[in-house]
Amino acid sequence: MIVHAQTVVIPSFRLECGATLAPVSIAYEMYGELNDDASNAILVEHAFTGDAHAAGISESDGKPGWWDRMIGPGKAFDTNRYCVICTNVLSGCRGTTGPSSISPETGRPYAMSFPATTIGDMVRLQKELLDLLGIHRLLAVSGGSMGGMQVLEWAVSFPDRVLSAIPIASTGRHSAQQIAFNEVGRQAIMSDPDWNEGNYYDADPPRRGLAVARMVGHITYMSDESMREKFGRRLREKTLLEPGDADVFEVESYLRHRGNQFVNRFDANSYLYITKAMDSYDLFAADNLANLNESGTRFLLISYTSDWLYPSYQSLEIVNLLRSRNHDVAYVELSSNYGHDAFLVDVAQQTEVVHGFLSSVSRNHLARAGRARAPRERVAR
Amino acid sequence: MIVHAQTVVIPSFRLECGATLAPVSIAYEMYGELNDDASNAILVEHAFTGDAHAAGISESDGKPGWWDRMIGPGKAFDTNRYCVICTNVLSGCRGTTGPSSISPETGRPYAMSFPATTIGDMVRLQKELLDLLGIHRLLAVSGGSMGGMQVLEWAVSFPDRVLSAIPIASTGRHSAQQIAFNEVGRQAIMSDPDWNEGNYYDADPPRRGLAVARMVGHITYMSDESMREKFGRRLREKTLLEPGDADVFEVESYLRHRGNQFVNRFDANSYLYITKAMDSYDLFAADNLANLNESGTRFLLISYTSDWLYPSYQSLEIVNLLRSRNHDVAYVELSSNYGHDAFLVDVAQQTEVVHGFLSSVSRNHLARAGRARAPRERVAR
Repeated sequence: MIVHAQTVVIPSFRLECGATLAPVSIAYEMYGELNDDASNAILVEHAFTGDAHAAGISESDGKPGWWDRMIGPGKAFDTNRYCVICTNVLSGCRGTTGPSSISPETGRPYAMSFPATTIGDMVRLQKELLDLLGIHRLLAVSGGSMGGMQVLEWAVSFPDRVLSAIPIASTGRHSAQQIAFNEVGRQAIMSDPDWNEGNYYDADPPRRGLAVARMVGHITYMSDESMREKFGRRLREKTLLEPGDADVFEVESYLRHRGNQFVNRFDANSYLYITKAMDSYDLFAADNLANLNESGTRFLLISYTSDWLYPSYQSLEIVNLLRSRNHDVAYVELSSNYGHDAFLVDVAQQTEVVHGFLSSVSRNHLARAGRARAPRERVAR
Repeated sequence: MIVHAQTVVIPSFRLECGATLAPVSIAYEMYGELNDDASNAILVEHAFTGDAHAAGISESDGKPGWWDRMIGPGKAFDTNRYCVICTNVLSGCRGTTGPSSISPETGRPYAMSFPATTIGDMVRLQKELLDLLGIHRLLAVSGGSMGGMQVLEWAVSFPDRVLSAIPIASTGRHSAQQIAFNEVGRQAIMSDPDWNEGNYYDADPPRRGLAVARMVGHITYMSDESMREKFGRRLREKTLLEPGDADVFEVESYLRHRGNQFVNRFDANSYLYITKAMDSYDLFAADNLANLNESGTRFLLISYTSDWLYPSYQSLEIVNLLRSRNHDVAYVELSSNYGHDAFLVDVAQQTEVVHGFLSSVSRNHLARAGRARAPRERVAR
C-alpha cells in the first residue's frame, strides 16, 4: 500500500495562549475508504517524534508507517472496514506548522518566536481538519504515549464527537521524573552552541545536542530487560576516541547511531516545543475535570508491564478518574518485555484487544443508528 | 569533628592495562584511632562522584562528609571502636591522580592520554596505601554504588585481607541500561565543543556538557516516588529563555542548578574515565569467578526497594553467586522511597543492619584471635 501525505492549509488558527497562527498547514494521511455517512473514521495520534505517516509505504521515502503493524486490511485498525486518518501534530516538523515554518510576518522561520502550543491546540487543529473532511464523529480516536494524551484531550474537549477513545501506554499528566527526562533533552539541545537560541535554520543545526537528547529518549523507550536481551554486555569495534582507549559496548554504539540518525529527520526547536506541550498537559486540571461528566464515549486503556516511562499506575489513575465519573471504561495491562516501545512493536495482544473493542463499538453504534432510524422510517411510511 | 585530607605519593604504580603511573598521589581521610595491632580498620569506598571526605567537617570547605550520617561516634561505623579510612579513587579529581593531574613526561595534564583504569586498579592502589599505613587486614570494607563494586573487588582480589565486605546498592556488573545512561553522560561531555578532545585545562571546561551529564545522573539517583514527593508538578519563576515562554517546573530548575553546581567540583575527563571503569567491571568474569572459592570473608549485601539504578535483582545475583561458592552471606532489602540515594540519605535501618553485622564480625574476630593467642600464651608460660 503506497501512501502519500496531504496538506490542508487553514487560514487562521487561534491558540490557547492567545496567539493566532495565520496560516497553519496540517499534514495528514488517510488509509481505507470513508463511508457515505462518514461514520467509519478513526483518528490515530502519533507519539512525540512521530508523524502523519502511520501506515503503508511512504511514496516519498519507501518507509513503512510508524503503526503499520496496527493499521491495514485485517489489522487492529482494519482498513477494510474503517477509514484511518493520521495528522502530524502542531509545532511538529513533518508537514504541519511548527517552529521551523516560515513566519509570514518576517519571511523567516519562527524559531523561538513560535507561540506556546498545547496538547489542546494539537487536538483543536485536528478537529478543524476533520470538519473540512466532513467527519463530524469519530468511531474511535487512538494513540500511544503523547498520542494517548491527545486521545484523552479529544474525549474531554469534544465528547460528542468521539464514540470511543483508546489511549495506550500514556498518562493523564507527566510526573516530575517524566518532566525531568524531557528537561535533560531540552538542556542538551539548548547547551549546544549551534542551537544559537533557536536561530540555526541558515546554519548548522544543534546536531550533537539533539543526538544526546535522543539517546536519553531511547533509553526510556526500552526496558531494562529488552536492552539486556538486545545488547547485553557485548562489545563493538571502536570508531572514535575513547577514554583510556576503553572498549565500546554495543549499546553505546547503537545509541550513538540512533542519535545521529534522528538529527536528519527532526527539528530541534520542535523537540523543545512538543516536550513542553507534553509536560504542561494535565487531564486532572480543574477545567478538564469539569468537562468529564457529560460524555457517552467508551474508553479502552492499555498499558504495558515493563513500560517504566509511562507505568501502568498512570493508566490506572485515568481509569479510576473515568470510572468515578461513571464512564464506560475497559482497562488491560498487557505483558511485554519491550518497555514503552511495546505499543509500537509488540502488537499481537494489543491487536486482539483493540480489534475486539472496535468491533463492539462499531456494532453498538450501528445497532443504535438502526434503532434510531427504524421509528423514523415507520413514521415516514 | 574537623577533618582534613592527607595525601601519600607512591613512586610507581602499574595498571591492569600495562601502563605505569609514576608517581601516583592518593588522597585519604581517617576517622577514629587505629588500635595497636591495626585490627580495627574499616575501609569505606566512595561512589562515582564522591571523594575521600566521607565524614566529619572538612577543614578546607566546612562541608560534612558524604557518609557523615553513617560514620562517627556511635554511628554505624562507630569511630569510638573502629578506625575508618576513605580514599579518593584513582582517575578521580579530588586529590588522587587522574586525567587532570600533571603528567611528569609532558609537564601538562594527562587529559585523554591518561591510561585506562579499572575498579581493580582503584582497589590495588588502596592496598598500597594500607600497606604504608601498616594495615594488613580490614575488619570491613564497605561502600554504596560504585563503592560496592570496589568492595566486591577487594573481596575477590585480597580475600585474606578482608574479614567482612558490605556492598550496598550495588551490582556485580553493569547492565546494558546502566552502560547506556553512562554513555549519555559521556556523549553530553564529548559533544560539548569546550571538551576539545579532553584538552580544556587551560581554557573553559565543558561546563554545559558536564551539567547535562549530571542532570541525567540525578534522575537515576532518585526514584519516581521521591521526585513526586519533592517536586510534584510545582512551578518556579522563569529565569531563562523558554520555548513558547513556557512554564518552568520546579524539577527542571532543580536539575539545572545541580548540574551547574557539579561543574565546579568535578573534572569532565574524570567523569569519562570513571564511568568507563564502572561499565567495564564484571564480577562474573571468568578470572574473578576463579578467585571466589578461597575466602573466609563474611558478606552483608543491602539493596533498596525503590532503587531502579541498581535494582535489588542485581544484589541478589551477587548473593546467589557467593552462596553457590559457600560464602557466608547475609542479604537485606530495605524499604525506602529515596531510590539509589537511599544509601546516602535514608540510613536509619541501614545503620541498624550494618551496626549489628559489624559487632558480630568484630566479636567473632576477637574470639578467634583470643583462641589463637591462648595456646601460645600457655606454651610461653
